[in-house]
Amino acid sequence: MLYSSIDNKKIKEIKKLNLKKYRDKTNLFLVEGEHLVMEAYKSGYLKELILEQDNDLNLDITTNYVTNNVLKYITNLDTPQSILGICSKTQNDTIKGNRLLILDDIQDPGNLGTIIRSAVAFNVDTIILSFNTVDLYNSKVIRASQGLIFYINIIVMDLTTTIPKLKNEGYQIIGTKVTDGKSLKSIEKKKKFAIIMGNEGNGVREDILSLCDEYLYIDMNKNCESLNVGVATSIILYELDK
Amino acid sequence: MLYSSIDNKKIKEIKKLNLKKYRDKTNLFLVEGEHLVMEAYKSGYLKELILEQDNDLNLDITTNYVTNNVLKYITNLDTPQSILGICSKTQNDTIKGNRLLILDDIQDPGNLGTIIRSAVAFNVDTIILSFNTVDLYNSKVIRASQGLIFYINIIVMDLTTTIPKLKNEGYQIIGTKVTDGKSLKSIEKKKKFAIIMGNEGNGVREDILSLCDEYLYIDMNKNCESLNVGVATSIILYELDK
Repeated sequence: MLYSSIDNKKIKEIKKLNLKKYRDKTNLFLVEGEHLVMEAYKSGYLKELILEQDNDLNLDITTNYVTNNVLKYITNLDTPQSILGICSKTQNDTIKGNRLLILDDIQDPGNLGTIIRSAVAFNVDTIILSFNTVDLYNSKVIRASQGLIFYINIIVMDLTTTIPKLKNEGYQIIGTKVTDGKSLKSIEKKKKFAIIMGNEGNGVREDILSLCDEYLYIDMNKNCESLNVGVATSIILYELDK
Repeated sequence: MLYSSIDNKKIKEIKKLNLKKYRDKTNLFLVEGEHLVMEAYKSGYLKELILEQDNDLNLDITTNYVTNNVLKYITNLDTPQSILGICSKTQNDTIKGNRLLILDDIQDPGNLGTIIRSAVAFNVDTIILSFNTVDLYNSKVIRASQGLIFYINIIVMDLTTTIPKLKNEGYQIIGTKVTDGKSLKSIEKKKKFAIIMGNEGNGVREDILSLCDEYLYIDMNKNCESLNVGVATSIILYELDK
């Protein structure tokens, strides 16, 4: 079917998926561009395709064709992609594996996407997001993750109740501070660990830090107060993957 | 003096500094926000202050007051800062130190800023930018660098003529590829080295790679094709700073 009017009810519903409120309500989210759509398809997340008319993608998936005008209406991007996908969120609250990354209120979608990409690169098993972390299904997060959001177990949980449980299950809980604690270069990791990274401006919250077994920091030149949180997380995950 | 009209010639000249063309012509650039203005001041780059009326900053520097309307006209930011600075570029083409970072056509201003921040953190002496790298004085670069642009020697040069000279001077020239070469974990660095990072989409250009002594890559999970270039650069600089 070809949709040519932005007044169409289905088109209006699709556009609303740019807002967290509607993603939460419907358990759906949008991905834009062929690369992300194909990653969503291969991982079983893709539910429906949206193609600009005269495009084709040979997938056995419900396909909606739209005019360029409708495409521009739906998209968040300055340069709209001619291939979009509607995906289903997965419902999941199972912590898997030995190598956990906990993110405490990361706000920037580019940072969260970059961190997800690096977490896949360095073999993290599960990422746990605090409730106030930026929405995982924000289109900027998905783009910055380069579609790797589909390749790793990611769950949203209350950290103050989750961390003590992890401790009981034998995970080493490692907090991060800008200077205090052990240098990353000297850290001795256990088989099961959870590393906690904090918000861009404020770092890890005090009540979360108080739950940690130890703390680590990255040695750096005194002219640099701190690193970008995506960079700091990636360096730590790289080092812990050795 | 208080400027209240966006038709004022000086105000128009200041606004033009958002464009590379005018920054090149005047050798001036803008910084926005108190933190960046203070970093520029401490490093001797600050030439004039622009303050929203009723603000004050106790610096011995020519100060221009503007109305909120004029401020909104000048700024590139969604939320204008009430403190701006006009800075002088430094003219410099001296390669200093033993630890060099060469950037071959990095395009994203956020990536360049992040890389500068990490280069300061991990004790790089000089950053050399190819001619087609995004403009160092782009406001997004300066913001992402957190003002650390003022704390490191950065020069723009033709890479194909510069790299052979560095080789003659005894620098170990290390190219980066996504998979080929030596693993970062096994690299043996010499006292004098230059590490070359490439463009976001295409990596280091072939003719630049052909000038290298050796190549390195970062070990990662096969589900991840590559890392964000800011992240990859930071991990390499972290490892080489040990």
